[in-house]
Amino acid sequence: MLNNSKTLIKTLKKTLNPDNILTTVEECYAYAQDATNSRTIKNIPDAVVFVETVEDVVRVISNAGRYKIPVICRGAGTNVVGACRVEHGGIILNFSKMNKILDINPENMTARVQPGVIVGDLQKAVEDLGLFYPPDPSNLKVSTIGGSIAQSSGGARTFKYGSTKDYVLDLQVVTANGKILRTGSNTVKNATGYNLSTLFVGSEGTLGIVTEATLKLIPKPEAKKVLMAYFNTVETAIQAVNLIIEKKICPATIDFMDRNAIQTVEKFYPAGLLCDKDCALVIEIDGFRNSIEYQQKIIEGILHNCNAVDIQCSQCEEEYERIWMARRSSMGACAKLKPNVTTDDVIVPRENLAKLIRGIKKICEKYDLTACLVGHVGDGSVHPQIPIDYRDEDEYKRYKLAKSEIYDLTAKLGGILSGEHGIGAEKRDHIAKVINGVALDYMRMIKKMFDPDNILNPYKIF
Amino acid sequence: MLNNSKTLIKTLKKTLNPDNILTTVEECYAYAQDATNSRTIKNIPDAVVFVETVEDVVRVISNAGRYKIPVICRGAGTNVVGACRVEHGGIILNFSKMNKILDINPENMTARVQPGVIVGDLQKAVEDLGLFYPPDPSNLKVSTIGGSIAQSSGGARTFKYGSTKDYVLDLQVVTANGKILRTGSNTVKNATGYNLSTLFVGSEGTLGIVTEATLKLIPKPEAKKVLMAYFNTVETAIQAVNLIIEKKICPATIDFMDRNAIQTVEKFYPAGLLCDKDCALVIEIDGFRNSIEYQQKIIEGILHNCNAVDIQCSQCEEEYERIWMARRSSMGACAKLKPNVTTDDVIVPRENLAKLIRGIKKICEKYDLTACLVGHVGDGSVHPQIPIDYRDEDEYKRYKLAKSEIYDLTAKLGGILSGEHGIGAEKRDHIAKVINGVALDYMRMIKKMFDPDNILNPYKIF
Repeated sequence: MLNNSKTLIKTLKKTLNPDNILTTVEECYAYAQDATNSRTIKNIPDAVVFVETVEDVVRVISNAGRYKIPVICRGAGTNVVGACRVEHGGIILNFSKMNKILDINPENMTARVQPGVIVGDLQKAVEDLGLFYPPDPSNLKVSTIGGSIAQSSGGARTFKYGSTKDYVLDLQVVTANGKILRTGSNTVKNATGYNLSTLFVGSEGTLGIVTEATLKLIPKPEAKKVLMAYFNTVETAIQAVNLIIEKKICPATIDFMDRNAIQTVEKFYPAGLLCDKDCALVIEIDGFRNSIEYQQKIIEGILHNCNAVDIQCSQCEEEYERIWMARRSSMGACAKLKPNVTTDDVIVPRENLAKLIRGIKKICEKYDLTACLVGHVGDGSVHPQIPIDYRDEDEYKRYKLAKSEIYDLTAKLGGILSGEHGIGAEKRDHIAKVINGVALDYMRMIKKMFDPDNILNPYKIF
Repeated sequence: MLNNSKTLIKTLKKTLNPDNILTTVEECYAYAQDATNSRTIKNIPDAVVFVETVEDVVRVISNAGRYKIPVICRGAGTNVVGACRVEHGGIILNFSKMNKILDINPENMTARVQPGVIVGDLQKAVEDLGLFYPPDPSNLKVSTIGGSIAQSSGGARTFKYGSTKDYVLDLQVVTANGKILRTGSNTVKNATGYNLSTLFVGSEGTLGIVTEATLKLIPKPEAKKVLMAYFNTVETAIQAVNLIIEKKICPATIDFMDRNAIQTVEKFYPAGLLCDKDCALVIEIDGFRNSIEYQQKIIEGILHNCNAVDIQCSQCEEEYERIWMARRSSMGACAKLKPNVTTDDVIVPRENLAKLIRGIKKICEKYDLTACLVGHVGDGSVHPQIPIDYRDEDEYKRYKLAKSEIYDLTAKLGGILSGEHGIGAEKRDHIAKVINGVALDYMRMIKKMFDPDNILNPYKIF
């Protein structure tokens, strides 16, 4: 425990509801990990503080600043890059009690929410009103809006609808010096001063603490359908993706599963997937009811031309759910192959996507690792899911080498280390592979400016 | 002329092509104004430098930094907030020679362009390939991408497609210390470090100088149609807008013209507009060919229910152009009413739009000013176009008072001073009405960090 932490906790117990402060090792241990599932637990938080109001957050930050104690925010802890891990002491700020949808305004098409709101809950609430909040990270049933903003979450629908940053209009942020900052406005456009809102999106809690968000909504598409098509080579699958785009079709989703992912899902969550195929595309089309059949026809034509060997199309809600469940189960299924599982999130310009997929497979073969590749290939994004046994020293070494080579390859192909998960603690050593020195210098200066004492989620990103 | 400007110009003449440097008063006078058409010319630039390469820009900035001479970028000079005006000495950096479309990549759906590229030229080039660059400021036939990025341009299609910031993936920027910064990546998603790209969008050349941009493209909609509907009250028009959105229709455009705008356009550019109506909506629908009729039917039903008194629908390209020409001519027509014309760009949450429109009309009546109101009402955005005779001291005084009251009203209605034009020199005195002190402080710190000597477009925004 950091020297000043005890004093800080004592002070906080006087100003906050003491029931909201966990301090025993047993209680804090549960917050030493997030979904990154890292190999070792280096640090246990000095305390876990549940905040209930923005005033609570101001009190915590002001005192943390006084005692120079790091503050690390946590929603559902679903991030996979160690972004809400305590690296060298500090306290966890838990937002699970700030989970209210404060307002949904159909006329403005906006929602005002607290950071602890579950993404899926918000989606349901707005869809009941005929509105739509598109960002849909795979873990949307548990992950929070605060986490989405911190990590710049995307999801399967980014291809058509963009990611979290495209839906954040305004944020209420508590700054490192305990001030309350409003970053934007409750309007869909804003050219009044600098874009502070988007600066905070993806900043992983290192610049300020988001306590409220105003999000843009759009009208809910009338209808949707999902297609699943199998291919005998990655190249023909990617060719199909390009042809779909060329035909001016803009599916909500163009996702990908490789043979390992298909086989692993089918092994643990049987869904009737074809396990002898090299890969599959999962394509969701949506829009006006009468446009669905039209889009489907064009897409099916292209898939046939690209030698797709089997095309399934959801004819009912149940079939729709079955296909999506299969696609979304890959991480869970992968986790059953070995005691541990890891995922990643590299992204390249789409023209280099087939090269990236082939390259990752080769690297994993070289290091004798199994990788289940899934990804949002419409975006050029690949998630290599690698099952691993952390107790196997040698495997872990090979795994680390493979990761580093995957990042080198991504950089070589003009890509970037994360499209939607963030960098966190896990990838910070590699960020210089894709971001040039001048940009990193400015990022560090921005960090220093917003957080001169480095108390906001330190040791993350760079 | 600033003391050091002569030395700077002498130095630049040695390192740049001397033909690219204008220094006579006659030559520089042409660059003392932009489309703001301000009342007085306070300052003539010390020089106008045409840059041809990023190296040219680095040379200018490095030397300008050395001699502490302000540098103000200019594309086509179409901005309307004095954003590229020299306020207290300095040189104009003219980008009209850096006007190349460097690359259009259909597979990645991206375009890499120099800042001097005309927005309309880029649109045409990508549309020829079946792609689409949606941001469409009214002046797109002359305005440049660099200007669009500087001012965070929107346009009529923002309602469905978002504004410039949603299409900037990566920027090459020359910083105040002459370094070359790359802000993002050539990928559609990026969660790797801070969002520097969007920080530069809308920063009006005050943080760095954009020398290249990688823009996101989307598939071009198959078909489009425009409807024009007249109403006897603003309230019923706004009600129609809300009902269209409620019905899950997402038109590309929902624009507005008030009676003054309709009458003024019809007077100078006859287009068959109905001059006895209170206002009109201009609604563009686009998408798959077979969705157009469907959208049209629903919208026409709503318009009828809201007592629209006449509905015209473009049946051919010519009619489409006629309606758009009428909507886009309002500023030009307004300019014929008096020796000068000004426009503005206030925006509120849509629920307060009718109040804003009524309020602006009342304020203009109170100060005996004619205002032609047009706007992108789908976004909650209004452009009050006010013809004025600058020689009339009294009218100018009344005009300034009216403007200030319009900003007060906007603030009261939860709005913001600019949705798509920027703040520039014209509105900086009013920015504190809508942006709180904490946000302004951070914006100023960001400015100071990127430009410690205040040489990049000083005296703008705040």
